[in-house]
Amino acid sequence: MPLARRCFAEALGSAALLAVVVGSGIMGERLAGGNDALALLANSVATGTGLLVLITTLGPISGAHFNPLVTLMDWLRGALGARDAAAYIAAQLAGAIAGVMLANLMFDLAPIAFSEKPRASPGLWLSEIVATAGLVLTILLGLRHRAAAVPALVASYITAAYWFTASTSFANPSVTLARTLTPTFAGIAPADAPAFVLAQCLGAVAGLLCARLLLGSLRPA
Amino acid sequence: MPLARRCFAEALGSAALLAVVVGSGIMGERLAGGNDALALLANSVATGTGLLVLITTLGPISGAHFNPLVTLMDWLRGALGARDAAAYIAAQLAGAIAGVMLANLMFDLAPIAFSEKPRASPGLWLSEIVATAGLVLTILLGLRHRAAAVPALVASYITAAYWFTASTSFANPSVTLARTLTPTFAGIAPADAPAFVLAQCLGAVAGLLCARLLLGSLRPA
Amino acid sequence: MPLARRCFAEALGSAALLAVVVGSGIMGERLAGGNDALALLANSVATGTGLLVLITTLGPISGAHFNPLVTLMDWLRGALGARDAAAYIAAQLAGAIAGVMLANLMFDLAPIAFSEKPRASPGLWLSEIVATAGLVLTILLGLRHRAAAVPALVASYITAAYWFTASTSFANPSVTLARTLTPTFAGIAPADAPAFVLAQCLGAVAGLLCARLLLGSLRPA
Amino acid sequence: MPLARRCFAEALGSAALLAVVVGSGIMGERLAGGNDALALLANSVATGTGLLVLITTLGPISGAHFNPLVTLMDWLRGALGARDAAAYIAAQLAGAIAGVMLANLMFDLAPIAFSEKPRASPGLWLSEIVATAGLVLTILLGLRHRAAAVPALVASYITAAYWFTASTSFANPSVTLARTLTPTFAGIAPADAPAFVLAQCLGAVAGLLCARLLLGSLRPA
Repeated sequence: MPLARRCFAEALGSAALLAVVVGSGIMGERLAGGNDALALLANSVATGTGLLVLITTLGPISGAHFNPLVTLMDWLRGALGARDAAAYIAAQLAGAIAGVMLANLMFDLAPIAFSEKPRASPGLWLSEIVATAGLVLTILLGLRHRAAAVPALVASYITAAYWFTASTSFANPSVTLARTLTPTFAGIAPADAPAFVLAQCLGAVAGLLCARLLLGSLRPA
Repeated sequence: MPLARRCFAEALGSAALLAVVVGSGIMGERLAGGNDALALLANSVATGTGLLVLITTLGPISGAHFNPLVTLMDWLRGALGARDAAAYIAAQLAGAIAGVMLANLMFDLAPIAFSEKPRASPGLWLSEIVATAGLVLTILLGLRHRAAAVPALVASYITAAYWFTASTSFANPSVTLARTLTPTFAGIAPADAPAFVLAQCLGAVAGLLCARLLLGSLRPA
Repeated sequence: MPLARRCFAEALGSAALLAVVVGSGIMGERLAGGNDALALLANSVATGTGLLVLITTLGPISGAHFNPLVTLMDWLRGALGARDAAAYIAAQLAGAIAGVMLANLMFDLAPIAFSEKPRASPGLWLSEIVATAGLVLTILLGLRHRAAAVPALVASYITAAYWFTASTSFANPSVTLARTLTPTFAGIAPADAPAFVLAQCLGAVAGLLCARLLLGSLRPA
Repeated sequence: MPLARRCFAEALGSAALLAVVVGSGIMGERLAGGNDALALLANSVATGTGLLVLITTLGPISGAHFNPLVTLMDWLRGALGARDAAAYIAAQLAGAIAGVMLANLMFDLAPIAFSEKPRASPGLWLSEIVATAGLVLTILLGLRHRAAAVPALVASYITAAYWFTASTSFANPSVTLARTLTPTFAGIAPADAPAFVLAQCLGAVAGLLCARLLLGSLRPA
């Protein structure tokens, strides 16, 4: 598959993912009348079902990473070259930003405005470590044991992680950066993004270590 | 499969789809006591599970389009003849109208009454473009990469799209026309329907272009 | 498989089905604080996931009918003998009543008390016709086109039908009779049960006719 | 597979399960503003999707018991040796406690504090008998009839059982003990735990008896 086409899939999938996360957050918040449990329920159901579609349909083209840490992980274990990995990450970031703009526009908001939602506490940072470690484990164990189920596994994992982590599980640096650009339910204040990204990197390392203990090796089959 | 039987499947499936969309909207609205997030949650869960059943059971008979744009798309890419396409679309429209009447009657309402629900804004029109492009991509990528999963993919896509688009994702001209005929949660004022249908046509074209970039060709296998 | 074992499966499955329907109704009603949309959401999610488990695990033993109309349908199309059908129906009724008693007891209620919930109107009767026709079609089309998916199809169908019909879709005479025995969310006043059962019989006939038109023949493969 | 690796899988899976159950309970309770139906809905959706991931990804390593009664059952029917069973149970308990601590910490609470939530009544004890019998039946019938579906079956069963039993279906002694250690939604007062565990043991026996009647033998294939 040519790199350009794979990068288009990564950009399109990242845009769609952010449109789903941010758009369903806005819709949930607007309709829920102040009940954040209902807004998060809508947000988590939409994100789960959306991810199932995106990973199933785009996975055969690009691998459906939509996440720089997943791309780096694939590069580390020898499943992707350095040049491809760099192109993937650029596509993911550009797509994610476009997706947030699209969501804002669909709800008749300005295309970009910074979030002012504070998300900073030890519990939230621990949550992002746990969330990312779990995502890495879900992907690596899923690929080894039941590759055809990975779209459903990642979708189910994220649905659960919206609820069992205090941070609602960003678990993705490009998603984190893009979510600084919407003044709505799913937003995060720009000042709080770097700590989230750092925690995600730590979580990815923790996930890789656990996966290595459980699987023996992480080399792709 | 004889054309008459396929058209009966399209009409029956369209009727069932509209009965699900409109009926679950009425039930959700009646029970939710003014909380539209709960009503839309019920509406989206019912539509998703209903679509899964309808596409799985009727797909092997007619292809389970239930949507004139999907039928036109199949005609464009050479998967359906012009006469068959015209018959499909007539069956879809007739079925959709019958389904709305059935839903109204099940909830002890007059069989037909026009909706007065305004649905017009740039964000809503953009939403219908996005929603229809996403539906077309879901179907075409799904058929190419994992045909057996298409019922689950379309069901999951629509569940997500109820939430991440501002319009709750009609994405279907016959559904749009039929939904002018119910004065309930899922209705749309007749005056606002044409812009929705136009946006859906634009979205279908956008989806076809993206699918062509991702898949190389759209010819059926 | 010996008839006794198959009847035990029908009784156990019917008991479990009623325990799920009635029990989750009580739990939903108690926790929802008067919001019936939330109670029905809990009720429909529990019934859908419960049915998936019951049909998958007991289907290979008895066929997992749990419904006299499904058993009669199998007898009509030559898939089950008359003696077996009679035994199945007795087991279903006994199981259903035991399941309601179990649900009442789990929630610290008297094992049996009549419901006083009125459920009578032309819309409700039409709903039961539609609900049962849809169930019959789901089963017969599913068995023909994708037999392994029938548990998921029936579960999804009932989840949707709780919402898109005004009656919340009983669609089952033994379930209807058993639900007269609980003074809770899922109950039905005994005086209103016969009309529901009659409507269900009409719906089953309508479903059989539609299935015959769509499939040509209903003979089991 | 070496025992150490299998025990690591049991510990990790048990920790993740408890993090999901307790964490999503806290999140649900905090966001739901006093509406326990919404909190339990979040709790049940997160637990169901989480279990699907954990059993699918860790099942091929250790069998994904996460439950001393499931381990004892496997020992009884000759699928696991005594030494392995003992090591599994120790790993499950240690993991479950670590998982509760992790959930408490993610939500900025003290790592451990006793629950004061009373859970004692005949209906609750009956609920635990029913819940555990159903879990045992789901696993044993699922393994015999459709082994690849067991993760989805157990996940669906628990989702339903959160609602149709009055106790929200603990059905697991190590989960019960660990849940005494959080002063939140999913907690149980330590004094009430022993009766729950006793009821679970009775339920497991009832489930084994029913499974034997339905399957003839419980010996692993």
